[in-house]
Amino acid sequence: MKTVAVKNIKRANADIASALGKLGASTVHEAQGRTGLLKPYMRPIYPGAKMGGTAVTIMAQPGDNWMVHVAIELCQPGDILVVACTTDNTDGFFGDLLATSAQARGVKGLIIDAGVRDIADLQEMNFPVWSRAISSKGTVKNTLGAVNVPVICAGQLIFPGDVIVADDDGVCVVARKEAADIRTKAQARFDNEDAKREKLAKGELGLDIYNMRPRLAEAGFEYVDTLDELGSFNGIDCRQED
Amino acid sequence: MKTVAVKNIKRANADIASALGKLGASTVHEAQGRTGLLKPYMRPIYPGAKMGGTAVTIMAQPGDNWMVHVAIELCQPGDILVVACTTDNTDGFFGDLLATSAQARGVKGLIIDAGVRDIADLQEMNFPVWSRAISSKGTVKNTLGAVNVPVICAGQLIFPGDVIVADDDGVCVVARKEAADIRTKAQARFDNEDAKREKLAKGELGLDIYNMRPRLAEAGFEYVDTLDELGSFNGIDCRQED
Amino acid sequence: MKTVAVKNIKRANADIASALGKLGASTVHEAQGRTGLLKPYMRPIYPGAKMGGTAVTIMAQPGDNWMVHVAIELCQPGDILVVACTTDNTDGFFGDLLATSAQARGVKGLIIDAGVRDIADLQEMNFPVWSRAISSKGTVKNTLGAVNVPVICAGQLIFPGDVIVADDDGVCVVARKEAADIRTKAQARFDNEDAKREKLAKGELGLDIYNMRPRLAEAGFEYVDTLDELGSFNGIDCRQED
Amino acid sequence: MKTVAVKNIKRANADIASALGKLGASTVHEAQGRTGLLKPYMRPIYPGAKMGGTAVTIMAQPGDNWMVHVAIELCQPGDILVVACTTDNTDGFFGDLLATSAQARGVKGLIIDAGVRDIADLQEMNFPVWSRAISSKGTVKNTLGAVNVPVICAGQLIFPGDVIVADDDGVCVVARKEAADIRTKAQARFDNEDAKREKLAKGELGLDIYNMRPRLAEAGFEYVDTLDELGSFNGIDCRQED
Amino acid sequence: MKTVAVKNIKRANADIASALGKLGASTVHEAQGRTGLLKPYMRPIYPGAKMGGTAVTIMAQPGDNWMVHVAIELCQPGDILVVACTTDNTDGFFGDLLATSAQARGVKGLIIDAGVRDIADLQEMNFPVWSRAISSKGTVKNTLGAVNVPVICAGQLIFPGDVIVADDDGVCVVARKEAADIRTKAQARFDNEDAKREKLAKGELGLDIYNMRPRLAEAGFEYVDTLDELGSFNGIDCRQED
Amino acid sequence: MKTVAVKNIKRANADIASALGKLGASTVHEAQGRTGLLKPYMRPIYPGAKMGGTAVTIMAQPGDNWMVHVAIELCQPGDILVVACTTDNTDGFFGDLLATSAQARGVKGLIIDAGVRDIADLQEMNFPVWSRAISSKGTVKNTLGAVNVPVICAGQLIFPGDVIVADDDGVCVVARKEAADIRTKAQARFDNEDAKREKLAKGELGLDIYNMRPRLAEAGFEYVDTLDELGSFNGIDCRQED
Repeated sequence: MKTVAVKNIKRANADIASALGKLGASTVHEAQGRTGLLKPYMRPIYPGAKMGGTAVTIMAQPGDNWMVHVAIELCQPGDILVVACTTDNTDGFFGDLLATSAQARGVKGLIIDAGVRDIADLQEMNFPVWSRAISSKGTVKNTLGAVNVPVICAGQLIFPGDVIVADDDGVCVVARKEAADIRTKAQARFDNEDAKREKLAKGELGLDIYNMRPRLAEAGFEYVDTLDELGSFNGIDCRQED
Repeated sequence: MKTVAVKNIKRANADIASALGKLGASTVHEAQGRTGLLKPYMRPIYPGAKMGGTAVTIMAQPGDNWMVHVAIELCQPGDILVVACTTDNTDGFFGDLLATSAQARGVKGLIIDAGVRDIADLQEMNFPVWSRAISSKGTVKNTLGAVNVPVICAGQLIFPGDVIVADDDGVCVVARKEAADIRTKAQARFDNEDAKREKLAKGELGLDIYNMRPRLAEAGFEYVDTLDELGSFNGIDCRQED
Repeated sequence: MKTVAVKNIKRANADIASALGKLGASTVHEAQGRTGLLKPYMRPIYPGAKMGGTAVTIMAQPGDNWMVHVAIELCQPGDILVVACTTDNTDGFFGDLLATSAQARGVKGLIIDAGVRDIADLQEMNFPVWSRAISSKGTVKNTLGAVNVPVICAGQLIFPGDVIVADDDGVCVVARKEAADIRTKAQARFDNEDAKREKLAKGELGLDIYNMRPRLAEAGFEYVDTLDELGSFNGIDCRQED
Repeated sequence: MKTVAVKNIKRANADIASALGKLGASTVHEAQGRTGLLKPYMRPIYPGAKMGGTAVTIMAQPGDNWMVHVAIELCQPGDILVVACTTDNTDGFFGDLLATSAQARGVKGLIIDAGVRDIADLQEMNFPVWSRAISSKGTVKNTLGAVNVPVICAGQLIFPGDVIVADDDGVCVVARKEAADIRTKAQARFDNEDAKREKLAKGELGLDIYNMRPRLAEAGFEYVDTLDELGSFNGIDCRQED
Repeated sequence: MKTVAVKNIKRANADIASALGKLGASTVHEAQGRTGLLKPYMRPIYPGAKMGGTAVTIMAQPGDNWMVHVAIELCQPGDILVVACTTDNTDGFFGDLLATSAQARGVKGLIIDAGVRDIADLQEMNFPVWSRAISSKGTVKNTLGAVNVPVICAGQLIFPGDVIVADDDGVCVVARKEAADIRTKAQARFDNEDAKREKLAKGELGLDIYNMRPRLAEAGFEYVDTLDELGSFNGIDCRQED
Repeated sequence: MKTVAVKNIKRANADIASALGKLGASTVHEAQGRTGLLKPYMRPIYPGAKMGGTAVTIMAQPGDNWMVHVAIELCQPGDILVVACTTDNTDGFFGDLLATSAQARGVKGLIIDAGVRDIADLQEMNFPVWSRAISSKGTVKNTLGAVNVPVICAGQLIFPGDVIVADDDGVCVVARKEAADIRTKAQARFDNEDAKREKLAKGELGLDIYNMRPRLAEAGFEYVDTLDELGSFNGIDCRQED
C-alpha cells in the first residue's frame, strides 16, 4: 500500500450531495439500481441523524488513528469522513476531540468501519456517526495508512469526492460523476411514492397496483380456502381442528 | 415447498391476543413453561413498542418480498405479519409503503426474520417492527413462497392464527388453542409478582421468600468470611492484602 | 470450581468509585494505559446511563440465576453486580424483581455477560444494565456457582471490590488498590482535554498540536497534489478525469 | 414445557432411511422442494461421514446433558440422536462415553445443536456427529428437559421417528410419512443427474441443456463484447486500457 | 499497560505438563472442576495434534507481532507460546519463519487469540497451533506490548509458567502450582472412565450406572407410552396417526 | 445494476498467474504491500488445495445461481470463477454438476462469497473451492445479475482478468496489470525467506536478524528479571511466591 495523502480532490456538487442526503439511503440505493449500500452492520450511534456530503477517505491500520488526523486537514465544509481499515477492528478510533476538530472545519459526520467512542458527547455536539461498533478502546499513532484514496468500506468501493448518504436505514455511496443523474432518479422515485402511498392508505392493494395477480398465476401460485384443505406443509400437519 | 396462500384461517380470540400483548413477552413466555420465545436477535426497531395480535404468516425467499404483497390482502384488523425466510437474509423486505398498506387493513405490526427499512417513517406511523436487521437493501418479486402456512421464524414454529406477543424484551408465540389458558396463567403470574415486588422493595431477600437457604446447603454451597480465607479460586490468588 | 460465597470483601473507596464513574469509561481506560475495558459487545440497555461503583461478583452457570439471589444479600449501597457465566449464554438472568431487590439494598446497577429482561421496567426504575443480550428467556435455580470470587467477565478479570465504570461507551474495571491513583490520572487527562478541545474548536489541527508532521515524514508518509498524480492505489485506477 | 419421555414411537422404515442417507443431504433436500435443511452452522466433526437413520429427539437445557442419558435407553438400532437446546449453547454435551453407550444400542450417530467433545475418539469409533461447536466444556445433570417430543433443531422442526440424512454438505430432515415418497423422488433426481453430468462433461452448457437463453433475453439480459464497451459498472470504471 | 518483558519465570514441571497434555483438554478441564477452558472458537489448524507444555505469554497489539520476536528469545524447550491481543484481531501474526525460530528453541506449539498463516508449512513442520483464525494478513512491528505477564487469552487468565493442554477438543490452562494435583485427579478420572466405558459397551445404561432414576422421579420427570398419549408439546400436535 | 455479461475480457498472463499461485496467498499479499487479501472467512472446502488463475467474475443475487450458468460459457482454460453476491448469503450456489461443466472448460476452481455443496464430490474431482459457507440449500434461476464486471468479493475489488491466488491460508487478488511486477517481488521475497529460515533454524533470533533491539529500547521497552520484580500487571498480582 502506498502511504500517501492526496491534497486536492474533485468533489461531487455540494447541493446535490445535500439533496441526496434528504432523500435518504433507501431511496437513493433503489434509484441507482439497488447498489451502493454499505453492509447493514453499519449503524448510527444515535437515532434520527440524516446527512448527505462528500467523502474524504481514510485507509487506517487496526488500532491506529494516525491517518484521521492527517485527513482532517484536507477536509472542507460539507465533507464526510469515511474510514476503512486494513482488517476488521472495533477499536474506538474517533471521539469528541476529533469531532470538535472535524466540526471546526465543516465536516458533517463520520462513516467508520471500526469503532467510535464518546458517543454521548457526539450526540450533544450533533455530530452523527455510522460505525461497526462503539468502543472506548483507545488507538495509537504508529503505523501509516493513506488518505483520499479509493477504499473498500463495509463492502463498498468509495472514491474520494463520492457522495455519502446516511440515515437511520444505513449508508449508501453514489459515484461522484453519477450524483446528478441519481438525484434526478431518486427524486422521481420519491415523488412517485407519494401517489402510491395515497392509494395504499385507502386500502388498494399492491397486488393490484403492481398488477401482480397474472404473474403469480403464471408462476404457478395457488390459493386454497382453508388450512384443512392444505393438509400439510413442509411435512407439518396444518389442519385447524377445533 | 408448496407455493400457496391459505385464504381463511381460524384466529385466536382478538381480545385475548391483546391482553397477552399487555402482559408482555417475558411474563407470557414464563406462563407457558419458558417456551415460545423467538431468538433474541429479534429486536424492535424503536423502543417502547408493545403489541399482541394474531399471526398471518409468510414464508419468503431471500431478497424477495413478493409474498408480503400476497399476505396483506389476507389480513384482518388485529393481525400481525410474521415473515420467515428460507435462508438467513438481512435485506429490507418491508418499508413505509407496505406498512401503509398493512395499517390500512388494521395490521398491528410486523415480525420479520430478515431486514426492514424506512424505520424513521415506521416509527412516525407508529407501526412497530421486530426484525433481525435494519437494511436499505431492496428486494425483488420473482420467486414464489407461501402465505398462511406453518413457518419457523427465528427458531419458533408459528402457525397462522397463533398469538404473537412482542415488546422491548423480545417476541413470544402462543398456540391458538392455548391462548385463553396461557392468558389466565400469565395474568396470575403478573398478579403474583406485585406481592413479591412489594416484599423485595422492603428489603426482604429472594433467598428467604423462595426458601433457598436449605437447598443451597443441601447442594453443598458454602460461605466463607473473607477472600483471605478463600485463598484462591480457579487458580487465581484471591487474597486482599492491603 | 469451588461453590462458595465470600461474605466480607474489601471495597474500593465509594467516593473514588463515584468520581471515576463521572469521568467515564473512555477516559478511565486511557488513564490506566488503555487497559481494563470489557469487550464492546457489552452494551447499555438504554442510552444515557452512567455509573461508578464497587463490584460484587457472581460466577453463574448457563441458564441459571441462583447465584444472583445469593449475591444480593451481600451487597452494600454503592455496589454494582457483576455477573460472569461459565459459558456464553444470552438467557434473561435478571429482571425487574431482582432489580427491585438490588435497588432496595443500594445497588447502583448491573454488568452481566449474559441476558437481561424487563428492560422497559428497568429503565423506568432507573436501574442501568450493561449486557451481552436482551432476552425474555427465563432461568432456573439448580446449579451452584460462586459469589465474590475473581471472575472473567467479557474478557476482563474482575475482583470483588474493584471499581466498575460504565457509560454509553462501555464498561471498564479499575483494580481496587489502583483506584485512587487512576482517579488522579483520569482527572488530569480530563482537565487536559479541555485545553485541547478549545484549540481544536478554533481550527488548530491535531497534526500541529501533537507535532505529528516530522514523525509522518520520518516514517515515509508522502503528500501528492491530485488523484491524477497518484494514478492508482491498491491496483485501482484513481484518476479523476471529467 | 412438559418434562417427559415418550417410550414408544413410530419410526420411518429403516431401509428407506438408509437409502435416503446414501442419496445425501443435498439431493434429498432438493427432492422435497428445497426444504428440511438444518442451518449450515451444523458441521461434521470429521470429513467423509454419511448416514441416514431415524430420529430419537431430545430437548435439553443449556449446559445440561441429563436428557441424553434418558434418551439412550429408548434408542433402537438405526436411530440417530437429535439434540435441541432451549437456548443457544456450545457446551460439550456428548463425548466418547455416551457414544460408547449409544453405539452399544445400535445408534448410528448424533445431530446436536450444541457442542461435542472427545472428537478424536469419536472418529476412531466411527461415530459421526454434526454439531454447532466442538468444546471440552462439561455439563451437569440438574435440569429436566424432554425426550421423543417435537423439537426445533438448528431451524428445523423434527418429530421423533423422522428420517435424518447427514453428510459433508449438512443435515436434512424428512417427515416420517413422506420418507418413501421422497426417497423415490430423490432417487429419480439422482439418476437424472447422471445424464446431465455426462453432457456437461462433454462441454455442453447448462445454458442450452436447461434452455435458459430465451428466458435470459426475455428478462432483459444483455451481452456486450468488451469491458470498454461496458464503460462502467456500479460507478466503477471498467475499461481495460493497456 | 507496562511495556515490559520478564526474563526469568518459574515454570510448572515439564513432565507433569507433558503428562497433562496426554490426558487431554476435556479430561483435564473436568479434573479441575470444569474450569480453565479457553473459548471454543480456538481451533487447531490441523487435526490430530495434542500437546502439553509451559506458557510463555505475550500481550500483543492488533496487527502487530513485534512481541512474538521478543518472546522467542525467552523460550525454553517444552514451552508453548500463548498470544493474547489487546483487542479482537484475526491478522496472521505467526507463520513458518517464526515457527522455525520457535522450534529451534524447543517450543512445542502456539496458542494465539488472533490469526496464523503458512498453515500447510506448519503442519509439515509438525508445529501445532490453536488459533481464532487463519489469515494471510501480515503484521507490523511498531507498537509495544508485553511478554511473560498475566494475559487473558480467549476468556482465560494465563500466567507465565502455567500448563497449557491442547488437543482436538480445545485448549485448557492449569495453574502452575496446581499442576501436580490436577494431574493426579485427571489420571484418576481417566482410569475411572475405562471401567465405565466397559460397562457402557456391554449395554449398561448411564441411567443405572449413575443411579439417575430416583433423581429423575423426584424432580418430576414422567414417562408416557406413546406420542398419542402425550398429545401435544409446546403447542405442537404430536400425535402419530397413520 | 446493469444486467449484462461481457464476452471478451483481457486476462493476466496465464503463466504468471500459475507462478503466483505456487508462491501462495501469504507471500503474494506481502509482495504487494499487504493488500489484496479477501476476508479470512473465505476457507477452502478441503485442505491442501493451491491454485493461481484468472478471474471470471459473477455478481449474483441471493439464493440465485443463474449467472453462474452464464459465466461458464465465457470461461477459458486457466480461469477461476469468482462469485460475489448482492447481499450476504450462504446458499449452495454451486455443486458437482456445475463443477463438471466448469472443469470441462478448463476452469481451475471457484471463489464464492456464498455457499457451496457436494463437497465430497468436488474433492474427488479435484475441483478446489474457497467459500463463505458449505450448504445444501438449493438456489433458483429467476433474478438477473452480471458476469465479467468488477465485483467486491469478501471485501476486495476484483476485476475480470485479475489474478486469483488461493491456498490453505486464504485468497488474494492481484491486479491484471500488476501481475508481472508482483510476481517478481513475490519470488524475491520467497527466495529471501530461505536465507532467513536457515538462520532461524540455527537458533539466530529475529531480534538480531532484523536488528530490533535498538528500536525496542528507543520505544521504551523494558526488561525485568522476574515476575516478583514486576509485581503487578494490569492490576493483576504477578508474584510467583512458592
